[in-house]
Formats: sequence, C-alpha cells, structure tokens
Amino acid sequence: MTSKKLVNSVAGCADDTLAGLVACDPNLQLLQGHRVALRSDLDSLKGRVALLSGGGSGHEPAHAGFIGKGMLTGVIAGAVFTSPAVGSILAAIRAVAQAGTVGTLLIVKNYTGDRLNFGLAREQARAEGIPVEMVVIGDDSAFTVLKKAGRRGLCGTVLIHKVAGALAEAGVGLEEITKRVSTVAKAMGTLGVSLSSCSVPGSKPTFELSADEVELGLGIHGEAGVHRIKMATADEIVRLMLDHMTNTSNASHVPVQPGSSVVMMVNNLGGLSFLELGIIADAAVRSLEGHGVKIARALVGTFMSALEMPGFSLTLLLVDEPLLKLIDAETTAAAWPNVAKVYVTGRKRSRAAPTEPQEAPGSTTAGGSASKQMALVLERVCTTLLGLEEHLNALDRAAGDGDCGTTHSRAARAIQGWLKEGPPPASPAQLLSKLSILLLEKMGGSSGALYGLFLTAAAQPLKAKTDLPAWSAAMDAGLEAMQKYGKAAPGDRTMLDSLWAAGQELQAWKSPGADLFQALTKAVKIRNGLNPLVLFPGGSYDPRVHLLKTLFPPLHLRAGDTIALTD
Amino acid sequence: MTSKKLVNSVAGCADDTLAGLVACDPNLQLLQGHRVALRSDLDSLKGRVALLSGGGSGHEPAHAGFIGKGMLTGVIAGAVFTSPAVGSILAAIRAVAQAGTVGTLLIVKNYTGDRLNFGLAREQARAEGIPVEMVVIGDDSAFTVLKKAGRRGLCGTVLIHKVAGALAEAGVGLEEITKRVSTVAKAMGTLGVSLSSCSVPGSKPTFELSADEVELGLGIHGEAGVHRIKMATADEIVRLMLDHMTNTSNASHVPVQPGSSVVMMVNNLGGLSFLELGIIADAAVRSLEGHGVKIARALVGTFMSALEMPGFSLTLLLVDEPLLKLIDAETTAAAWPNVAKVYVTGRKRSRAAPTEPQEAPGSTTAGGSASKQMALVLERVCTTLLGLEEHLNALDRAAGDGDCGTTHSRAARAIQGWLKEGPPPASPAQLLSKLSILLLEKMGGSSGALYGLFLTAAAQPLKAKTDLPAWSAAMDAGLEAMQKYGKAAPGDRTMLDSLWAAGQELQAWKSPGADLFQALTKAVKIRNGLNPLVLFPGGSYDPRVHLLKTLFPPLHLRAGDTIALTD
Repeated sequence: MTSKKLVNSVAGCADDTLAGLVACDPNLQLLQGHRVALRSDLDSLKGRVALLSGGGSGHEPAHAGFIGKGMLTGVIAGAVFTSPAVGSILAAIRAVAQAGTVGTLLIVKNYTGDRLNFGLAREQARAEGIPVEMVVIGDDSAFTVLKKAGRRGLCGTVLIHKVAGALAEAGVGLEEITKRVSTVAKAMGTLGVSLSSCSVPGSKPTFELSADEVELGLGIHGEAGVHRIKMATADEIVRLMLDHMTNTSNASHVPVQPGSSVVMMVNNLGGLSFLELGIIADAAVRSLEGHGVKIARALVGTFMSALEMPGFSLTLLLVDEPLLKLIDAETTAAAWPNVAKVYVTGRKRSRAAPTEPQEAPGSTTAGGSASKQMALVLERVCTTLLGLEEHLNALDRAAGDGDCGTTHSRAARAIQGWLKEGPPPASPAQLLSKLSILLLEKMGGSSGALYGLFLTAAAQPLKAKTDLPAWSAAMDAGLEAMQKYGKAAPGDRTMLDSLWAAGQELQAWKSPGADLFQALTKAVKIRNGLNPLVLFPGGSYDPRVHLLKTLFPPLHLRAGDTIALTD
Repeated sequence: MTSKKLVNSVAGCADDTLAGLVACDPNLQLLQGHRVALRSDLDSLKGRVALLSGGGSGHEPAHAGFIGKGMLTGVIAGAVFTSPAVGSILAAIRAVAQAGTVGTLLIVKNYTGDRLNFGLAREQARAEGIPVEMVVIGDDSAFTVLKKAGRRGLCGTVLIHKVAGALAEAGVGLEEITKRVSTVAKAMGTLGVSLSSCSVPGSKPTFELSADEVELGLGIHGEAGVHRIKMATADEIVRLMLDHMTNTSNASHVPVQPGSSVVMMVNNLGGLSFLELGIIADAAVRSLEGHGVKIARALVGTFMSALEMPGFSLTLLLVDEPLLKLIDAETTAAAWPNVAKVYVTGRKRSRAAPTEPQEAPGSTTAGGSASKQMALVLERVCTTLLGLEEHLNALDRAAGDGDCGTTHSRAARAIQGWLKEGPPPASPAQLLSKLSILLLEKMGGSSGALYGLFLTAAAQPLKAKTDLPAWSAAMDAGLEAMQKYGKAAPGDRTMLDSLWAAGQELQAWKSPGADLFQALTKAVKIRNGLNPLVLFPGGSYDPRVHLLKTLFPPLHLRAGDTIALTD
C-alpha cells in the first residue's frame, strides 16, 4: 500500500509546498520557471555575498524556511528526496548575481547528486564570470569508519546557514565566509534515531521496524541507519547516542570534552510528538551536563525533517564566543526559533514555591460551642452518606457510571478523618473554605471540583457577616460559581437543579424578620416544579443536600425527611 | 498494542517534557513542587498584569512554548490530555502575585475539567484578595449546532495568548485586557482534519480510520470528529474545510466575507509532514484569496498539537489594524514564529527569471572548415556509440545496473539531433560548453552530471588559447572538477580512471615541441598500470574515451583501435 498523504498530486508535491511557503512568507519570492525561492528584498543586497542552499524536498522547513535577512539568500529545491536541477541552481546563481551581489556561496549537503548538480552549476556560473564558492557539509556521526563518500549532510547544515548568514549580513567577503564556515562545519556532528520509517508520496515506507526496535544512525531520506537497537527509555537512547557521537574511536565523532561549550539541536525528523521531543531534550541536557559539557544554546523543534519520520536527531556544535555571536545574530528566517541569548547551562531552572497566605488571627479559632456543633452536624452528614453508599451507586448505575455513592463516601471519609485531627474552625467562612480544599483534594472528579467551587464561592459572603441574608448570599454565590464554570443552567438535569431550587427558597432570608427554620425546611424539601427531580423511594437523602446542610451549622435535619435528588 | 513512544515512563511524560522545555529555554523556570513553568524574569513584571494558561499536556509546544515577554507569564500543565491540578494553578497565581503583578488573567480552553479547575483556583485566589479574571476560549468551528458546553478550545487560543501578551506588555489593565481578548476570541474559528488518530503514551489509538478516510472536525485529544470524509486532494479538503468554517448556516462559523482581513494559522496537529503542511498552506491561501479574503498574516507550523496526530487545523481570525499591531508585537516566546509584518495578500510572489548571459560575438561563429570537421568527429563518435549500445549494456549487467549502453546512446542521439539543427560552434571552448549543457539535459543520471562537469571545466582553459598546452590544461581542469564534486580518486574503479590515465599522457603536450598525434595515441591506448582497467575483448570502444575525443576536433581515430574501459 502506498502512503496516505495530503497532497494534490505526487508529481506536484515539491512545487506545491514551496509555493505554500512562499505564499505565506512575504520575505520570499519564487523565481519564475524554476523551483527556486529567493529573498524578496534581493535588490537590497548589492555588494554583499549571496548564500544559496537547497537539495531534495521532503526536509521542510529546510531549506526555504531558513531564507531571510541573516540567513540564506535563496534555495533551490528538487523533487522529494531528489537533487535539484542544474539549470535551476544556475538560474538562482544568475538571479542573485544580477541583483548586484558580489559572489555566491553554495551550501550543499554531502550527497552525490547534490555535489554534482551544485558543482556543475558552480562551474557553469564561474565560466560566466560569477564568483561562486561551495562548501559541502557532512555532519553525520553515525559511521565509525569514514566512507569514501564522506559524512552525510544532516541537520547541522542549518547551523551553517545561520553562521554564513550572519557573516554575509555583516558584509564579510566570499572567501572569508567560505573559510570560516568550512572550519565550523568540521566542529559538529549529528546522529538520528527513529521509531519507524517514512514514505515518499506515492511510495511505500523504505524500511520496516518491529514494535520493540529503534533505528539508529539513519539519514534524512528514509534510508536505514547503521544498526537497530532494542526499544529503551528516552534516557537510555539519548545516552547511547551521545556516547556514540562523542566517542573518540568513532572517526566521525564530535570532539566534545568536559568543559566544552556546545550548541545543541534537538530536531524532530517529522512525525515525533513534541511531547517526546521535550522529554528527549531533557534527557540530552541532563546527559551532557552530567559529563561536564556546557550547553550554550539549545534549539528544539523541526528544522531538517525526513517527511513524517517519527524520530529525531541530535546535533552538537562546538562553539566559542565569536561563533556564538553569529548563532545569536538577528534573522528574519521564518523557521529559525526565538533563542534566548544566554547559556542554558549554569542558570537556575526553578523558582521557590510561593508562600501560602497567612490566615488572619481569630478566623482560625477552633473549639467553643459553635465549633462543637459544627462537628456534630458534619459527623451526622458523613455517617448518613456512608450508610447510603451502595444505594446511591445502584441509583447511579441506571443513569450514569454507578459511582455516585462511592464518590460521596470518599468525601465523607475525608471529612471524618479531618474532624479527628481537631475541632473545626468556628467561623462559617473558614469552615466552608476548609471543606472546599478537602473535597477538592480527596473527593476528586467533576463532583469534587463542583462542590469545591460551590463552597469556595459560598465562603466569601460569610467573611464579613453570618446573619441570614449573608447565608442566602452565600448560597447565591455558590450557585453562581457552579453555573459559571460548570456551564450548566437550572433544568439541565445536573446536580445544580436541587441546589438551585433550594437557593430560591432561601431568598426568603433576605427579608427582614425571615424565619430561619421555615425557609430552610422548604429549601430541603422542595420539589422544584421546573425540574424533573427524582424522589427517593422511602425518602432517602440526597447527598448533595447533605452537603448543602453543612452550610447551616445551627441546624441538622433527621434522616427520613423527604428530599429531592436530580439525576 | 500500546503505542511506541520515546519516553522514560508513562507517568512521568508531562513532568519530563516540561522539564525539557524549561531546561532548553533560559526564559523559563519551573515552580518548585508544581508542574508549572513561569517566566524567569518574573520579578521584572511588577505593576503589570500576569497571563496564565495551560491545560493537559500533549499539545506541545502549547502552552509552555508561548511563555515569554509579550506572551504568557506562565503555564500550568496537567498530565497528558488531563486538566491540571487546582493546587498548582493556585500556586502559579500566588507566585505571579507575590512577584508584584497587579492581577492575573487566566486564559483557558473550553473543556469542562479546565473550566472547573481554573475556575476553582480563581475563586480561591480571589478569596485571598488576588484580582483574577478568566476567559474561556472556544474557537472550534466543527459543530454547526451549538452544544450546551460551547465550542471547544483549539489552536486559536495561541492567538489569544499573543494578543493578551501584547496588551499586558503595553501596560494595559486586567479589566481592559479581559474585555479586549473576549471580543477577539469571538472573531475566530478553527477546524481540524486528520489522516489517523494519535495515542496517549501507554494506550492504544483512540479511533481507527481506513486508508481512504479522513476525520473532519476533530479536537486535540484524539477524540473523533464530526464526520468522516473520503480521502481527497489537499485542495479539495482545504476547500471543504474553509466552506464549513465560513458557512453562515454553521452556528460556529467565522464571519469572513469578501474583503475581510484575516490572520490564518496552519497548525500541524503533530505527525503530518511539513511537506504536506506547505501544500495545505498553499491550498488555503489560494482558496481564501479566490473568495476575496485578504490574508494579513499566515502562520504555518506546530502550535497546538495532539501528540503525533497526522493532521492539521486551520484557524481564521478576523483582524483590523489595531489587532494586527498586537499580533505583530515583539515576543521572546520560543514557539512563536518569525512573522513578517506585511500583508500576505497583494504582494508579488515571484520574480522574473534572470537573463541568460549574452554570448560574445565571434565566439558563436559556426560554419567554416573547423566547424565542419567537428561535426564529422561528433557524428563518428555518435554512430560508434549507438552501434555499441547492446554490447555496453551486456558488459554493464555484470558489474552494474546494465544501462551503460542505453545512457550513452541517449547522449549520442541528443548530439546527433543537435547537429541537425546547424553547424556546431567553431570555438572549442564554445563547443565543449554546448556539449556540456546537452549532456546534462539529455543524458541524465550521474554520468550526465559528471560528463557535464568535465566538459564545463575543460572548456575554460580553451577560452583564451587553443594550443596544445591549453588542451592539456583543459583535460586537467575537467579531471579536477570530476574528482572534486564526484569525490572519486584515480584507482577507485570509476569512470575517472581511464580519463585520468589519458590526462597523464597528455601532460606531454605542455612541453615545447610536443607531438600532438604521438601523445594522443598513447592517451587513448593506455593501460594504466596503477588502475585495474578492463580491456574490451576484440578492441571495442570505451564510450567515455569517445567523448574524450570530442575534445580534439582536429583528430578522429578509427574504430578498431584498442582502448581501455574501467568498470
């Protein structure tokens, strides 16, 4: 089976994607008749060196994403994983020359096709009198014995774009840029790993891996790597990779030593989740710093992909301060990340937790008769809830997931445990706040959050006063919070319904001379005509109304009262 | 089977990835004891409004990647696809308050868990006297009939981070920021599509799609979408999505009209190749502009992912100039892209191809006796090559892919066709350049590129002079270019070997009074002692030496001469 891809045609992939990048980035323009993107401010580069790169498509955002002030002048793109046409490379060289640049550096990844085609275009351009130099980048650290063809060009090439771009922007000449980046290119290494292959549009995946295998040292064209290893943790795989890359017996190693400063790139090869990429970045930082390596800058993202390959590569570049300045230089290139201009290693990565607010003296007063009465009310509520656990679960099984009783028993046990630690606060506001925290932490689920919200909000009006209007206002505040964050309205057949109906009755408390007991009795007995309430057969308790009653420490109703329960 | 993931432990994923983001970005710090990241320059924000966001992990780079000057002050992360803990949200609010900020805006995606937990923390913080506001973002345009729970929060949330961040950075107050972003949030919509599901670490994929299906209108937690559509082209799918998002009969549509200005986001849901993302961006730009919509800014990348889901979302935000200024404002947030501050729509997206260099008058002179002699030489070379096609293929089948004769015949036919168009140039340099272009275009493969390189480079020394030393220098230049770009050395058993050996013999031409014929005879007959050359049985021609002989128009050897061929 060929791969499932969101494309218009297999043949048009490379053209379409480059057109998309150019369409979305006003800094870019296409060169008519060629698969070439160039800076749209080309004519402002008179007297400067032009930097061209490119290669096969399928590595996006490389290379067009790195066009911009301070990076590339332009790129030439081939078909997917195919070297670009010589004629297009030559056209790009001519275009930048005709715009007034004084010479061109071709930055080419080390693949035969790219070397030959860019080389040819270079020779033809030189024959026309255009000064053109070429650097071939080989940063692959996979092969421990050097091959005739040299190291493959991988993600490190993007760092060369950056360094060359900063130099060109600073007005440095062609020869000097060529010399500088050739030196920089020797001080880096890249190693890739993947959980699976990728597939060229219209084709099958290029290799197959079993569920417990990982491919190590692969390239960016779906080609297999140097060997397969067993699936392991991110820490283990990253450690193995860094060991391989820095091992001095590896002919393509990066000469990193304790005390070295490096720029590290963690590059998504395409289809790895960014969750995993962050985990890998964490592992790489810990491993390198554990070996005494100083990480100057860390770049984490998608820079040089291999279509949708679910893997990543690590790149290390040895840096000193002058080189770091070039890495830090400004660029408008869309795919270059915002990188902070300070060392990653050596800074403080955490901040002390905030202090908890001090409770006002007096508000925490516990003990006394009010406190004792509250403890009695709560104890009664809890034992009643615990006794109803299985009955509530059975009712909930008909309408929901059957854990209503379990959830409320969890709350009851938490309150019981808390009561054993000492008498509850005498202040109603303080009591509700404490209950809120307790339910949030111990009850869990949406119920815990909703009761927590209700109690937290209800506590506020009781801070200043605890008279009847304040209790009614507390109920209102709790209901408002529940509706606001829970997005349920009365009548939606949620736990809000019975509480809301009760709250309506408690409005009576706001009138002068209201009778406490009369309104409360109505509130807990109400059958809300508006809402389809379910009456417990035999008159059992709605645990929600029990909790509601914790709002009213002066009273406690007896089991057997008829109350309402919503579904 | 559970998913294959690069992690250390399923339970530690959210902590590890946040630690990695913080480790790599010196602008961030963790809050001790909580899964919270905050700006490391928190203490410089005295008197400003703090912006906190967050939610479940698995959406990286959202939300921690959007922390920075000009965007978020901090984020609170839950486990993968799980709302964060209230205690951690409260701790983050306290931390920014204790750093001296004057109030906090919570930017929350519309999911029940997030609404409740952020809501609770807000109520608790307000109870402590900290001014906290909350905006709930619902930008999903999938559901044509509004649900009770409202629209889900998707990638558009990132734009709200940006707008709020710019306002906070400008010193705007809490109430005003809340008001402004609430208005902005109503002017946008997002729609997702995916080729397949994603899987939470340790779990199976959440839905299955067949090879010819696409899931439309999905969320960012692996939940299924509103319906499945048949696989189609990128153009068709994007058109369908934009129609759905902007259809006024869709209750969650974005009121985009001809003439409207929009910010467009093309967001990788995780595992889509950036090649496809570019193709989709291109389709979206064409479709929107085709409907008269002006694209003010286009953001293409990974902003709000759903683990490794191979899909994308489109977001449209209606903008005016003041809003655009906020989108354009500077930020240090690592995951905010470099966006050019000019309209995407209305600018010139291509540049005229460069002019071809004018050939110097005289150098193109054709005709005359020299020209005729060259035509004869070339014709002889071509017919000989064509006659040997099958023989060369047979020899190549033993050592390679069996197309050596075919490739060279293609070159011969191309040269014959070109000769029919008129007499070749009289100047050797011009002739070699023309042949180079011809072979590059028509011969193809590595052979075409290598001959092209050889001839292009060889032409250069013949521009000034055409005496015997110049011919020897031409051979040297061609060989040097071949070695340089082809990375082969003499003795590597490549096509270079026989040419290189011939070039050694031609050094004799550099001596005064050298004999043209004597050196050339040696050159084409040589058996290089250093190199393992294969001698054709019966003395057939090496096509490479034939082409070499095109270098020497005054001569043409007869078939039957003994010559050498490398493997």
